[in-house]
Amino acid sequence: MQDFQSILNNILKKAKQQTVKGKVADYIPELSGIDPDKFGIAVLDSERNICSTGDAKEQFSIQSITKVLALSMAMSHVGEALWKRVGVEPSGDPFNHLSLLEMENGIPRNPLINAGAIVVCDILVSRLENPKSEFLKYVQDIANDPTITYDKKVAKSEKRTGYRNYAAANLIKSFGNLENDVETVLDFYFYSCSLRMCCEQLVKVFYIFMNRGKCLRNNTHLTLTQVKRINAIMLTCGFYDEAGEFAFEVGLPGKSGVGGGIVALLPNKFCVATWAPGLNDKGNSKLGMWALEKLTTETGLSIF
Amino acid sequence: MQDFQSILNNILKKAKQQTVKGKVADYIPELSGIDPDKFGIAVLDSERNICSTGDAKEQFSIQSITKVLALSMAMSHVGEALWKRVGVEPSGDPFNHLSLLEMENGIPRNPLINAGAIVVCDILVSRLENPKSEFLKYVQDIANDPTITYDKKVAKSEKRTGYRNYAAANLIKSFGNLENDVETVLDFYFYSCSLRMCCEQLVKVFYIFMNRGKCLRNNTHLTLTQVKRINAIMLTCGFYDEAGEFAFEVGLPGKSGVGGGIVALLPNKFCVATWAPGLNDKGNSKLGMWALEKLTTETGLSIF
Amino acid sequence: MQDFQSILNNILKKAKQQTVKGKVADYIPELSGIDPDKFGIAVLDSERNICSTGDAKEQFSIQSITKVLALSMAMSHVGEALWKRVGVEPSGDPFNHLSLLEMENGIPRNPLINAGAIVVCDILVSRLENPKSEFLKYVQDIANDPTITYDKKVAKSEKRTGYRNYAAANLIKSFGNLENDVETVLDFYFYSCSLRMCCEQLVKVFYIFMNRGKCLRNNTHLTLTQVKRINAIMLTCGFYDEAGEFAFEVGLPGKSGVGGGIVALLPNKFCVATWAPGLNDKGNSKLGMWALEKLTTETGLSIF
Amino acid sequence: MQDFQSILNNILKKAKQQTVKGKVADYIPELSGIDPDKFGIAVLDSERNICSTGDAKEQFSIQSITKVLALSMAMSHVGEALWKRVGVEPSGDPFNHLSLLEMENGIPRNPLINAGAIVVCDILVSRLENPKSEFLKYVQDIANDPTITYDKKVAKSEKRTGYRNYAAANLIKSFGNLENDVETVLDFYFYSCSLRMCCEQLVKVFYIFMNRGKCLRNNTHLTLTQVKRINAIMLTCGFYDEAGEFAFEVGLPGKSGVGGGIVALLPNKFCVATWAPGLNDKGNSKLGMWALEKLTTETGLSIF
Repeated sequence: MQDFQSILNNILKKAKQQTVKGKVADYIPELSGIDPDKFGIAVLDSERNICSTGDAKEQFSIQSITKVLALSMAMSHVGEALWKRVGVEPSGDPFNHLSLLEMENGIPRNPLINAGAIVVCDILVSRLENPKSEFLKYVQDIANDPTITYDKKVAKSEKRTGYRNYAAANLIKSFGNLENDVETVLDFYFYSCSLRMCCEQLVKVFYIFMNRGKCLRNNTHLTLTQVKRINAIMLTCGFYDEAGEFAFEVGLPGKSGVGGGIVALLPNKFCVATWAPGLNDKGNSKLGMWALEKLTTETGLSIF
Repeated sequence: MQDFQSILNNILKKAKQQTVKGKVADYIPELSGIDPDKFGIAVLDSERNICSTGDAKEQFSIQSITKVLALSMAMSHVGEALWKRVGVEPSGDPFNHLSLLEMENGIPRNPLINAGAIVVCDILVSRLENPKSEFLKYVQDIANDPTITYDKKVAKSEKRTGYRNYAAANLIKSFGNLENDVETVLDFYFYSCSLRMCCEQLVKVFYIFMNRGKCLRNNTHLTLTQVKRINAIMLTCGFYDEAGEFAFEVGLPGKSGVGGGIVALLPNKFCVATWAPGLNDKGNSKLGMWALEKLTTETGLSIF
Repeated sequence: MQDFQSILNNILKKAKQQTVKGKVADYIPELSGIDPDKFGIAVLDSERNICSTGDAKEQFSIQSITKVLALSMAMSHVGEALWKRVGVEPSGDPFNHLSLLEMENGIPRNPLINAGAIVVCDILVSRLENPKSEFLKYVQDIANDPTITYDKKVAKSEKRTGYRNYAAANLIKSFGNLENDVETVLDFYFYSCSLRMCCEQLVKVFYIFMNRGKCLRNNTHLTLTQVKRINAIMLTCGFYDEAGEFAFEVGLPGKSGVGGGIVALLPNKFCVATWAPGLNDKGNSKLGMWALEKLTTETGLSIF
Repeated sequence: MQDFQSILNNILKKAKQQTVKGKVADYIPELSGIDPDKFGIAVLDSERNICSTGDAKEQFSIQSITKVLALSMAMSHVGEALWKRVGVEPSGDPFNHLSLLEMENGIPRNPLINAGAIVVCDILVSRLENPKSEFLKYVQDIANDPTITYDKKVAKSEKRTGYRNYAAANLIKSFGNLENDVETVLDFYFYSCSLRMCCEQLVKVFYIFMNRGKCLRNNTHLTLTQVKRINAIMLTCGFYDEAGEFAFEVGLPGKSGVGGGIVALLPNKFCVATWAPGLNDKGNSKLGMWALEKLTTETGLSIF
């Protein structure tokens, strides 16, 4: 673990010198007030050693990163049946998500775009008695950390202004690919996106995907095949319209969120999370992308 | 008027012999129970003579025909400012309305497609204290007929299943082109579409567009320029993806609705309404289209 | 005819005072050198009186206006069979013609967009032994004017730079909707677009569409039904993405070309042509649109 | 190497028992006559041991696999400048490639779709004096095998029927993203796709991408960064609209061709090629996909 710690320290030092940090997301009022100078990074290795630096213990809104967790829970419940309602291919379409959804008859391209995550949430709403509390419990369990919580303010803020998500959900509903009320599904969706974690918590949650489906508490939640599926989807679809760039620069399966978080992992080796609120023009954390590229270059640990 | 009456009688006779009548709209449960054999036609000429035959005194849901009336009322209120929020060009796109809306940044192509009518309703909601009652009053006034009413059952039925309209409204809202709540606007929109009229009432309402803006009660609601604009839009956009076909077959500005109604007019000459619930595959009344083509061919009264 | 002449003189006088004249088309090198101050207008009435003013006797490249003539000749040859290969609905899509063509499986929306005109040219290439000379002869005949000719320089210039037309033709070919070689069809297409006429010649050619299919030499080339079809298509599709605006402003079936020409007509009444090389941002002659609006407003002669 | 050979033998045995083999590509006449029962597989490891079985020494048309080689050669010539003219993101759009190209202003999404490969070919045409012979020489060199050749019949066959490629090239040209004539570029493009190789030759050619840019003759053609870029693009874009599925099933960077070939590799470990002419409905070799999944599952050698 020695190595990781000194590499992280070095990355933090250089990160502090960066002047171009991107733009903090402002479409959700609750997110726009974040200090753009925040920077945290944490690594958890296969031996369960954790090391971190910077603001790695400070919580932030994980936003879209939660989509991987919702997918994971849904796969545990319905297995392969999930793929009848959502695809596994990259969307490659930054500008007209609804057009694509319309042309493909309400079947979202993959579960990591908003439309796909909405369908995943619909599945959970159908299967769970108390979706919000059971999903939170699931996340707390796999992280072995009962302190993880929702940020109700952020959830409500998104709900008030999430017109595009309402448009997508209604369009999906019109194609018969939502079982529950739009309102119910989106309420759960916005809550799920409002999860707050710090970098150290994120790597603990995502440990399950680097550890062949077995979580920190040693419970097996996913088959190896399911973990491979999730990792493949993260690799090809985890970074909006920058998946190809991330695959090249970093070379790891991962997922970003507009809160400035990124989590990535090398199967059987390590899991890493970064937090830097400034986003590039594709919506991914600018310093986070840079830090992960540094990490994989310096350690030589990537899939390529 | 002699002429019109005998022509209408003749059309009715032949209509009764037609065997291919199209398919009654079933996406709104309340509409699906209509007798497909219904057929009515009415003409009102510039001298205000009315003649009709068949089921011309039986009311039906005018549905999209109401879009012309909402547009008319909105133009009276805001004039040319309306065109900043909605276009005047044909949409020519039967299958992916939301795609087009998305690519054109939430500005609907014209006020006679659903998205455009939703924006028009938003304008009325902003301007009117009691949109539903004031719009109804407006329609009753220009028709000089206080018996025209909404069909609340139809309005509620559409509201429960109108996912595509919710998708469109939310998409428009996401582009900042709705001033009011999606819910409020759509509530008014669905009510406006639920207006019930018979053919005779329809021609009385649309008399204003053939009579240079002056209604049956001799009040001037629209300038001549405004009437020309509305008629031009009906001609190029009034028949979903069959506007070009209607312009050729019938050669009159007009508007159809999925309830099976069609209204059309020749400026300064006459106004005609038909009702036959069976629709062709473009969503326009099959016998209505046929009847209007017959009428203009036999009278020689069309714009070409 | 007295009236028309004084109205035309008046329009010319006011046109000369206009300072905002649009931008001369420069995508075809041969067109870019035209004097932007040129302005001509001509009217031919049902009694075959012609009157004109300004540069109405100076020839220009009629460009897309020729699409109406190719359509007319093709309809004479194949009749209704033509509509199996091209639609009659407005395209309403200024920015992505190929997308629409691709989504509709190579069937162009209407014969007045480039893709549609290419299919029409393919039909003529299949039917005619010497397409170029026979088409020219056809145009000369209906205009009763053997001096009309192609401008080979313009044809060659377009051929060298017409990449979008090559793209469209190849796409149509890939869907099996071209019978002949792309090269052969486009060679004829570019020639047909290079026809040169002055305003006076244009109204003589288009006389056939206002005169129920009978040309100036009293030969009947089209049935009344065919003329109605052509006029309906001009009205709904004749002005790129400004068809709705033209229908409102002018209220006549017509067609424009990027050479700055516009021709329009009122069935059984009159035919008018204007020429002013400056285009608005939709690609239609700026002063031409203005002049036609003036003409129909002052004479009260329009379809509305 | 013992292991690989017995695994390959085993795969061959099971492959012979498969009854559902997909459909041989028939859009190129020259390809349609291939025996659907052909099956070959070859592996080259980091120690340069090669083992193979079945029809691994029989040549076939590598088709789209050549796109990776053209990209590789172009990167050697122009380096990062290449990315100004073509993107690196998955296209995720099976049905309307031209639409996407049109909306993105003639910049293809990535170099492994046809449009992108055409731009890559344009770069090579600009840089090379004799593109065809120099490209062939490049491929022979990195494979250390001078017997690799073009199949002129296939090249000519594609040229005669490649309307969609002509459409794409002309569209790209219209946006100014082709420097050379469409004809010249496509002539080279079709030749490049007509390369014939057997599985054993394929792994020798692709050895360079598993060996950090150094080919079998020990010449370094690419920097490690360039190799990473190419591998990342293969992983996210190498399988038409099945890239996500392949990443999951196989978990290796790779590329398929409609000739039934697939090549894939694990950096620093091994390179594998399969040939089975029957394609699944996404255009990838059905048995090839199956065989590669078997191989990575049994060896545990994949990126996940």
